[in-house]
Amino acid sequence: MVPRVVYGKGSFNQLSEIVEQKRITGAAFIYLIDDVFENSTDLTCRIKLKGNDEIIFVSAKEEPKTSQVDEIVQRLKSSYTLMPGGIIGIGGGTILDLTKAVSIMLKNPGKAEDYQGWDLVKIPSVYHVGIPTISGTGSEISRTTVLTGPTRKLGINSDFTPFDQVILDPDLTQGVPKHQWFYTAMDCYIHCIESLNGHFLNAFSQSYGEKALELCHEVFLNNLSDSKKREMLMMASWHGGMSIAYSQVGIAHAMSYGLSYVLGTKHGIGNCIVFDHLEEYYPTGVKLFKEMKEKHNIVLPQGLCKGLSDKDINTMIQVAMSLDPLWENALGKNWRNQINAEVLERMYRKM
Amino acid sequence: MVPRVVYGKGSFNQLSEIVEQKRITGAAFIYLIDDVFENSTDLTCRIKLKGNDEIIFVSAKEEPKTSQVDEIVQRLKSSYTLMPGGIIGIGGGTILDLTKAVSIMLKNPGKAEDYQGWDLVKIPSVYHVGIPTISGTGSEISRTTVLTGPTRKLGINSDFTPFDQVILDPDLTQGVPKHQWFYTAMDCYIHCIESLNGHFLNAFSQSYGEKALELCHEVFLNNLSDSKKREMLMMASWHGGMSIAYSQVGIAHAMSYGLSYVLGTKHGIGNCIVFDHLEEYYPTGVKLFKEMKEKHNIVLPQGLCKGLSDKDINTMIQVAMSLDPLWENALGKNWRNQINAEVLERMYRKM
Repeated sequence: MVPRVVYGKGSFNQLSEIVEQKRITGAAFIYLIDDVFENSTDLTCRIKLKGNDEIIFVSAKEEPKTSQVDEIVQRLKSSYTLMPGGIIGIGGGTILDLTKAVSIMLKNPGKAEDYQGWDLVKIPSVYHVGIPTISGTGSEISRTTVLTGPTRKLGINSDFTPFDQVILDPDLTQGVPKHQWFYTAMDCYIHCIESLNGHFLNAFSQSYGEKALELCHEVFLNNLSDSKKREMLMMASWHGGMSIAYSQVGIAHAMSYGLSYVLGTKHGIGNCIVFDHLEEYYPTGVKLFKEMKEKHNIVLPQGLCKGLSDKDINTMIQVAMSLDPLWENALGKNWRNQINAEVLERMYRKM
Repeated sequence: MVPRVVYGKGSFNQLSEIVEQKRITGAAFIYLIDDVFENSTDLTCRIKLKGNDEIIFVSAKEEPKTSQVDEIVQRLKSSYTLMPGGIIGIGGGTILDLTKAVSIMLKNPGKAEDYQGWDLVKIPSVYHVGIPTISGTGSEISRTTVLTGPTRKLGINSDFTPFDQVILDPDLTQGVPKHQWFYTAMDCYIHCIESLNGHFLNAFSQSYGEKALELCHEVFLNNLSDSKKREMLMMASWHGGMSIAYSQVGIAHAMSYGLSYVLGTKHGIGNCIVFDHLEEYYPTGVKLFKEMKEKHNIVLPQGLCKGLSDKDINTMIQVAMSLDPLWENALGKNWRNQINAEVLERMYRKM
């Protein structure tokens, strides 16, 4: 779990005070910031750079890659004699996941791809801070950083992955474009459905999942002020992330990873595209998803996989089926009795 | 926040594996355990002592005191040349609070009473683990350890107070006597009412408080299996603790601290005695409290303060009124317009 968290509208202003307490003389703080903020002085002028601190703007157009992590780490290692004193990520899931992975890889030998899996990281990461600017991914609280590697899309799941500090400032999520807002929020909604309907569920995850789901319902089906919605959605993301941190995601995530690996589909929209076709597995959840989609006039892309080559579809299926814990959570130990390449191809071809 | 938590029936069995990862050669692990378990080998035989590890049984009959913390610290310092590698607390709020305070005071100079207040601790505490055996106090998650000192009852609130690791095993709460079960659970219920009706509430605390309150309703007003109740109440305590960690408690706690300071009333029952008379301030919460009390045939002690000397009543009032943040949370900045010695004396005399 994240040991320290600050919540509140305007709490971003506490950033400098918080990180200065962790300042190691001569060591830089590196800010990885979503490049949508590159020309927005509103945000960057509130960051107080000192000494050799540096802002690196990173595009979040594509899903984060292990190679991208290795490049940033290489760049930092060659630019700085002293290990950075902290990595501060400001952005959505992509930036937060990159921040977590960079802070791990600055301390651990080898390549980021070597650590995709569960509990492979042995050396504590550099101090890292997460500041979400969009709500839903749960990356701010989770113990994973999901990366696309040369052979698979899989998280670095470890005790050293979670942020040391999180700042939750709902005001930072103002101005997110509507479709992106919806897709990212649905990541949280889908986390909850997968967690609450999973075999790994326990009372701990259940209590978080139920609260997150309730908040999603209020945000997407009730009429609240935008400010209230931002606050509640930020908490939904947080609780949804906690719910899966102690259980697991399911079919939508497994299949969405396949989609993303082959087509580069971003995680939020990928989840939505897949989930829209999962009535058989999550009937109530999908029904409500369709209601929310309609209420907010969201039209999902169609026919992404229709004309794909057999090779591509097979890769997709392989990536999806390699995620045993996700399938086991969704369908139990004998999930392979229900899921095989043929079943998945039929489902993918509809998307 | 607590950085690491394990949840689940039987998860207590993971204790040895968890603490061994933190073993420093030659340094002892000290187990502070509620003395109700002194003759129950069921629990103690599952603890794997090594080297100079030691179990200290502590009575939880009285509220924890700063002097008691100083004594345990003194005893450990004179018995061990090396600083203990960890303090593991197994018990209710009293034992958990003692564990947190001992782990702080092993590293910080002076007496425990010097640190009663907010953010006075400067040196990180010894690694400490909390394992609740009764649900409701929220001590397992909170950043405070409430102690009775020579001049006041007040918490050591600091970033170094929370446990490094918590093990939540609902099975450990089996066998708690009914009245104690009720009083301690009501600590959680009252946390939620005070937090949700407080001026310091924000969306973060609200989401935790609402979930904890919902779980309390289910446990106390619905008909669930005992096993399910234990699981849900353990999560209620956790979320209730989180809710007040980021907001504040209120009138019941302020007045209960006064009661406890003068009469030594235990925290859980003290809260209940006070809360029962707070219809004016928390009408809905008190109404439901009375329903729960009735459903579970709980009869609260009466007339505790009736015959008290003026001196005692004045001390009680002074202790209660010294807790500014609690009153401000309950009634706003101008709380002194509503609350004075006369008002409090009238209320106390009814209890």
